[in-house]
Amino acid sequence: MKPYSELTKEELLALKAELDAAFEDVKGKGMKLDMSRGKPATVQLDMAEGLLSAVSSNEEVYTENGTDCRNYGLLTGIPEAKKLFADICEVEPNQVIVYGNASLTVMFDAVARSYTHGIAGCTPWSKLDKVKFLCPVPGYDRHFSITEYFGIEMINVPMTPEGPDMDLVEKLVAEDDSIKGIWCVPKYSNPQGYTYSDETVRRFAALKPAAKDFRIFWDNAYCIHHLYEEADRQDQLLNIITECEKAGNPDLVYEFVSTSKVSYPGAGVAAMISSEANLKEAERHMNFQIISHDKLNQLRHVRYFKNLDGVKAHMMKHAAIMRPKFETVLQVLEKELGGLGIGEWTKPNGGYFISFDAMEGCAKKIVAKAKEAGLVMTGAGATYPYGKDPKDSNIRIAPTYPTPEELAVAGNIFVLSVKLVSIEKLLENR
Amino acid sequence: MKPYSELTKEELLALKAELDAAFEDVKGKGMKLDMSRGKPATVQLDMAEGLLSAVSSNEEVYTENGTDCRNYGLLTGIPEAKKLFADICEVEPNQVIVYGNASLTVMFDAVARSYTHGIAGCTPWSKLDKVKFLCPVPGYDRHFSITEYFGIEMINVPMTPEGPDMDLVEKLVAEDDSIKGIWCVPKYSNPQGYTYSDETVRRFAALKPAAKDFRIFWDNAYCIHHLYEEADRQDQLLNIITECEKAGNPDLVYEFVSTSKVSYPGAGVAAMISSEANLKEAERHMNFQIISHDKLNQLRHVRYFKNLDGVKAHMMKHAAIMRPKFETVLQVLEKELGGLGIGEWTKPNGGYFISFDAMEGCAKKIVAKAKEAGLVMTGAGATYPYGKDPKDSNIRIAPTYPTPEELAVAGNIFVLSVKLVSIEKLLENR
Repeated sequence: MKPYSELTKEELLALKAELDAAFEDVKGKGMKLDMSRGKPATVQLDMAEGLLSAVSSNEEVYTENGTDCRNYGLLTGIPEAKKLFADICEVEPNQVIVYGNASLTVMFDAVARSYTHGIAGCTPWSKLDKVKFLCPVPGYDRHFSITEYFGIEMINVPMTPEGPDMDLVEKLVAEDDSIKGIWCVPKYSNPQGYTYSDETVRRFAALKPAAKDFRIFWDNAYCIHHLYEEADRQDQLLNIITECEKAGNPDLVYEFVSTSKVSYPGAGVAAMISSEANLKEAERHMNFQIISHDKLNQLRHVRYFKNLDGVKAHMMKHAAIMRPKFETVLQVLEKELGGLGIGEWTKPNGGYFISFDAMEGCAKKIVAKAKEAGLVMTGAGATYPYGKDPKDSNIRIAPTYPTPEELAVAGNIFVLSVKLVSIEKLLENR
Repeated sequence: MKPYSELTKEELLALKAELDAAFEDVKGKGMKLDMSRGKPATVQLDMAEGLLSAVSSNEEVYTENGTDCRNYGLLTGIPEAKKLFADICEVEPNQVIVYGNASLTVMFDAVARSYTHGIAGCTPWSKLDKVKFLCPVPGYDRHFSITEYFGIEMINVPMTPEGPDMDLVEKLVAEDDSIKGIWCVPKYSNPQGYTYSDETVRRFAALKPAAKDFRIFWDNAYCIHHLYEEADRQDQLLNIITECEKAGNPDLVYEFVSTSKVSYPGAGVAAMISSEANLKEAERHMNFQIISHDKLNQLRHVRYFKNLDGVKAHMMKHAAIMRPKFETVLQVLEKELGGLGIGEWTKPNGGYFISFDAMEGCAKKIVAKAKEAGLVMTGAGATYPYGKDPKDSNIRIAPTYPTPEELAVAGNIFVLSVKLVSIEKLLENR
């Protein structure tokens, strides 16, 4: 098929009539489909059944150093959970604090702590006239929500397949000391599935920010979330902690990880990895917040997964379930939209999302159109700070929760919506 | 024995020589005892073994409304956990938000939220020149630490067996709009074990604070933590939520509870109970912090305890273990210090502590003396804001963690320390 832009008005109108009929047809089926959030499917959660009973008797509640996980104590986490996260992130256990269920809470806390008490001896952000964050776009809506909630001005930085535009990042952080942080999902990024290149990571580690309390918020949410078993289809990310140390900037980064998409989103374990000085500050704050996080759940995870190899093997089971879903969506997109010039999309090797870029000014309408036929997508604009996609172009596709059968239908609704909205757009200028 | 104050200098000196010898004797035994923190004993934790396997298969992970507790969702908690906490606190489930492991975190968050974003449409505390809290004393050190951490000025309010001095509370909150809160442990208070009288609760509910964002921080940590089964030895606390509603002040109070000393301190569930408006504010904030707390652990608790009767029956098992410990300590105090006029102590019907008041200026020395013989007590002063007991008199005794045998030894060390330090004090003026 020819690109839509090369079609005559008459051809577009004829095509529209045909697609309208197909859309009415699928709409009439009264589907209810959800591709809005990066939720693991039930079958993925079922795989970790052994986790539920991994600690099930009084004899099993003790850590390797003899601490009773049921009682108070061990503020920064049990040693074996630190070890497991250290192995996942290729750092030392003393570079890890293990928290409760949600890395989002740990990130919120890191912002809140800087806001209320300041870090590295700097003025608390609440006492400053202006605080800014850099936001690689498109990105993760919940990151942007946190900074918006604290009144932090967000500056868009374009993403590339190599990571954020580092020329811009270097320039901005060097010249503006009100820029205090940057949100990063460095591996299998949300929503594009891009992995930062080695050069990007090294340039991050070598940043010379004007603000002493500038921190990279390195949300390594998908660090081991490959879709493929073959080594050449597994993205590799350079270790930011090591690179920062090498560059003489050990305090520059907070790395966040969790088992939300390893074990359970609703009952996992989160961790922060950083320098000794940064962890000491975080620990001081925690000391006022909590006596200890849920250590039994930490222990459960260690007992069930055993070690890094156990985690990796488990992640390959996830991949076996997710891979066909990603491929189904990608096949529909390629088959139905390939060569039409009305959309581009990413083809990630891991993570939870596919990013779709429609023609300018079409994203909101496509999402609305899909909803007419019962398909809920992530809200258009959600991938940008303040919910404002300047081009109204980006749509995040989350293919993990529906079944493969549902995905085929959902994919069909989506491409129909893209085609129809694009034709309307093209007809505007004819 | 006569009160020490009636002894002559010679009698005091003779007694001192005798007690010094006894102290050296016990010191020589090289004991290591800890009566510093309100920790349940291992045998108490062992009683809840069934909790560990209460949710152990894929079929068991769903709430009664079909929600998968392993996945994202249900921000404010699972319905059945709300119901259980509602029954414990005699409120409706829609008056409950269920959180993660620690009520301390929920309290910290309530303060932090008021500090960063303000509540009830009022100016965030971070933007005010002065914020103050009332602190009934003696009280709980971790409460005071939170307010101190946020730079909040703390004003001591004396405790009585009926609760805080309400004349003072009413006067202060009415005349000073910088007073934004009061820390309360209304039942089996920490450290005295006092329970607020009905009149005290009603006067709390009827407060007319100058500050619209004044809140009562009602830490009902020991709401069902009786030491005795007999009804007349179980303290009764009026329901503050209901009383506030009746008084037309539904938003005046945040009530906090947890299962830290019901199931496990290190892996329990916490909750906040409040008005619709207050919970809506809390929920809005949570929405930025977390997608959902650990719902599996919430479900585990409901499945294990089943209902309020199940919880109450379990608490009586705790009582059976704790009661003899409290009684051992009280017997030693009565036998060794009764009538000597060198100390007074409380005789609680529940909770985790006994409060001891030494002669003025003696608490620090007593705690130091006991430590010489291997007994760690809560630091003197810890029960007061800023760690400053104006009379240097109050000592918190936490009898729950040691075994009964250890307690007998610990009690002996403690009374010897009290006697020796008191004699030194009395000799100063002879």
